Amino acid sequence: MPTTYNKVAGQSIERLAALSDGIFGVAMTLLVLEIHLPSTGAVHSEHDLWRGLVALGPQLLAYGMSLVALGIFWVGQQAQLDHLARSDRHLTWIQIGFLFAVTLMPFSTKLLSEFPSYRTALLAYWGNLALLGGVLYGSWGYSTRTGLLKPGTPEQTVTAICNRIVVAQGLYAFGALLCVFSTAWSIAFIALVQVNYAVAPRFRSRR
Amino acid sequence: MPTTYNKVAGQSIERLAALSDGIFGVAMTLLVLEIHLPSTGAVHSEHDLWRGLVALGPQLLAYGMSLVALGIFWVGQQAQLDHLARSDRHLTWIQIGFLFAVTLMPFSTKLLSEFPSYRTALLAYWGNLALLGGVLYGSWGYSTRTGLLKPGTPEQTVTAICNRIVVAQGLYAFGALLCVFSTAWSIAFIALVQVNYAVAPRFRSRR
Amino acid sequence: MPTTYNKVAGQSIERLAALSDGIFGVAMTLLVLEIHLPSTGAVHSEHDLWRGLVALGPQLLAYGMSLVALGIFWVGQQAQLDHLARSDRHLTWIQIGFLFAVTLMPFSTKLLSEFPSYRTALLAYWGNLALLGGVLYGSWGYSTRTGLLKPGTPEQTVTAICNRIVVAQGLYAFGALLCVFSTAWSIAFIALVQVNYAVAPRFRSRR
Amino acid sequence: MPTTYNKVAGQSIERLAALSDGIFGVAMTLLVLEIHLPSTGAVHSEHDLWRGLVALGPQLLAYGMSLVALGIFWVGQQAQLDHLARSDRHLTWIQIGFLFAVTLMPFSTKLLSEFPSYRTALLAYWGNLALLGGVLYGSWGYSTRTGLLKPGTPEQTVTAICNRIVVAQGLYAFGALLCVFSTAWSIAFIALVQVNYAVAPRFRSRR
Repeated sequence: MPTTYNKVAGQSIERLAALSDGIFGVAMTLLVLEIHLPSTGAVHSEHDLWRGLVALGPQLLAYGMSLVALGIFWVGQQAQLDHLARSDRHLTWIQIGFLFAVTLMPFSTKLLSEFPSYRTALLAYWGNLALLGGVLYGSWGYSTRTGLLKPGTPEQTVTAICNRIVVAQGLYAFGALLCVFSTAWSIAFIALVQVNYAVAPRFRSRR
Repeated sequence: MPTTYNKVAGQSIERLAALSDGIFGVAMTLLVLEIHLPSTGAVHSEHDLWRGLVALGPQLLAYGMSLVALGIFWVGQQAQLDHLARSDRHLTWIQIGFLFAVTLMPFSTKLLSEFPSYRTALLAYWGNLALLGGVLYGSWGYSTRTGLLKPGTPEQTVTAICNRIVVAQGLYAFGALLCVFSTAWSIAFIALVQVNYAVAPRFRSRR
Repeated sequence: MPTTYNKVAGQSIERLAALSDGIFGVAMTLLVLEIHLPSTGAVHSEHDLWRGLVALGPQLLAYGMSLVALGIFWVGQQAQLDHLARSDRHLTWIQIGFLFAVTLMPFSTKLLSEFPSYRTALLAYWGNLALLGGVLYGSWGYSTRTGLLKPGTPEQTVTAICNRIVVAQGLYAFGALLCVFSTAWSIAFIALVQVNYAVAPRFRSRR
Repeated sequence: MPTTYNKVAGQSIERLAALSDGIFGVAMTLLVLEIHLPSTGAVHSEHDLWRGLVALGPQLLAYGMSLVALGIFWVGQQAQLDHLARSDRHLTWIQIGFLFAVTLMPFSTKLLSEFPSYRTALLAYWGNLALLGGVLYGSWGYSTRTGLLKPGTPEQTVTAICNRIVVAQGLYAFGALLCVFSTAWSIAFIALVQVNYAVAPRFRSRR
């Protein structure tokens, strides 16, 4: 009976975390690998090489943006898994879905970095972020509903994790909308949102 | 004497799980990396880019199918390792054999996605799935026979894990057989089986 | 003072094991990725594709051989780490040296698979195996001499791990020597030795 | 309120270590993958192949240097994480910043190995080392200031970890400065510093 198998499958949060760390680690490292050096034939002086590297600027920015995005979602997933007492088969598959969206990031990033002025590329990139956020939101909802959380997890934490996803996704969606003006606005806005999530709270908490 | 070495080698289930998570993580991430963007020279408008991405559809489907397959086998392997009290040298090598089959998946997937209408490609892909299932079945059989299971593992669990593999492999074999009509039928059937294993039980258990 | 730093650095066997599993996992998965499919332009029938795949045979064998080699060394390293009570800075660096030799395997494998009839390629491949074995031997020697082993590790185990490396390396060296006749003899002999380490003990122990 | 989320996020040192091992593992393995074999068309004799491999010497040296650099920083990060009692959201992001610098290493290494006589390439490579060291220094400073260290960590250890980074970075900076004479001097000096950190203490401590 499939039910029995489904009761014994996908129990281990440790394995889920380990697979996640593997996939995030590979995805983050591969992002940078896609950046191609200026070809040796085109470089005849320090100046040429310098200009070749400067020309990689937009690509490096796109990859930096995706690294930060992956960092944000890695922290977000960790915050969830840390509060789980146990896993089950369904949560495992929701999380595998989340990891699939992670493996798509190098693809969407390359798409955006090669076609930065195309709305199609920007919306595909945003779609990837929305997928990551949506699945993570669903994962948290499922964990809360089915009692997978550690007993004693404060209601405040449950809400904080929800709200963080909703607010972030709202900002990303607003950024994506800005592409009716120009994709450059969208990219700048999404990048700012990400930098804010990574860096700003440190300054804020120092005050 | 080799016997002594073989008694001290391959004892750690944790290391086996960690190597598995590493290999699954890399294999899953690399699958998507193989999808190549439309070349920048061929894209002159949003419409071109959109069509270029739509043209990647079959490739994306093939990769999605393999991601789900790897997810299924990852869950399946985890279900087994979770029930082991200890490992030994032979089990370690059976599992390394299983991981070899995992590393072949990006190859078979690329083969199928480039030659989707060729029976040779489809049968190679199915052969990979059959190898994964066969080795996993052998691994469970070996663990059961040699008393590696945690004491108190219910007989029902032992059978459920066996049956799951047998039923899944039966369905895959049937799907492969459908290629006497057309490889498209095979691919559609195998994809449906996989989606069923990943998604359907959730709906079923909600009823 | 560097001494103080060196006393606090490289203490964690768990981290060493995790880095090793990561590197082995990536190296094993990448081996297969290097195998290139027949180009779509050259395939017009099932027969063409079949022949294209058969032509990949030698490459697949080379990669299979390296997968088994990496499996053997992964098991060997695990057998050592399992018996350590603690690590220190020097052992960590010996093990990092071992991992460097692991990262060279995809390179030597590609070399051998593209130039299978060249003695230079074969000796480079053997050199990689010898490096792996030599560093692992040194690592065990260092651990034994400096009292890193778990108290109560039987003398028999210490010797068994030593002997296993010496015998295997002796066989590999003999295989490499066979290239004075032909590299094919060397490859066949080394492959047989590896298959023996992976598979044969199972049959032997069944008797 | 973001504050609540930031209090529950980034708590797990284990996950941080696992992500780090994943990223270091991938980065180290990919370094060697970038080395391209002599093309089969250009090799007609053992002598050709031998010369082709010798011609890879400078590339192999550059990659070896980066492997050792990554090893040094991996040991350095491990020394820090080993002394932490807990993590927080800010430390997690500092460490993610460190990992970003790790993912840049394959890029800077390729840059240096393709343009070894260009100061721009050398300074970019040194910039990567400086970034790694700087972020690691900041991470340790933050951990010390905010009381994340295990109670009872001796003051001597805190200072030793600081000093190690300052001295190493001073040496790297001096090496980079040598490029006013020639990049070859810089590369040789930096390589020597690295080999010293990896190997020399063993000999020193034997005396």
